[in-house]
Amino acid sequence: MKVRVTITPKQGILDPQGVTVERALPALGFQGVTDVRIGKHIELRYDPPGGVSAEQARTDVDDMCRRLLANPIIEDYTFELDEG
Amino acid sequence: MKVRVTITPKQGILDPQGVTVERALPALGFQGVTDVRIGKHIELRYDPPGGVSAEQARTDVDDMCRRLLANPIIEDYTFELDEG
Repeated sequence: MKVRVTITPKQGILDPQGVTVERALPALGFQGVTDVRIGKHIELRYDPPGGVSAEQARTDVDDMCRRLLANPIIEDYTFELDEG
Repeated sequence: MKVRVTITPKQGILDPQGVTVERALPALGFQGVTDVRIGKHIELRYDPPGGVSAEQARTDVDDMCRRLLANPIIEDYTFELDEG
């Protein structure tokens, strides 16, 4: 199945990349851009040998997020699974 | 309005971060993960002084993506606008 994970810096956590982008935009002629937050978008296929139920797949992907993909101390994550 | 931009490496472009994650997952006990691609997820507010039409906002955000947020040579991007 296809998995799409979205990882964002937690509210209140400084996001230096976002601050940099926000400061750069006016110089390019874009006024009125605020609250820039930059996170990660991860796509992967998850097809464990033998197959898994949708519920087990959700548990596994949640585990992957907590243990490798995201840093739960400073980042939030959400994900969606897509059969096929 | 709220803007959400998703940036992904183009098909065929090497994604070393994705390769690294893919190699690390089996060591953590996750079998069957393939095609890992890591891109960016950007959230921002766009409220230009005087306001803009939805159409103009789309044009402006597309411009921001091409000129600063993404690298169109090696990355694809999509975005969605949300009033409010």
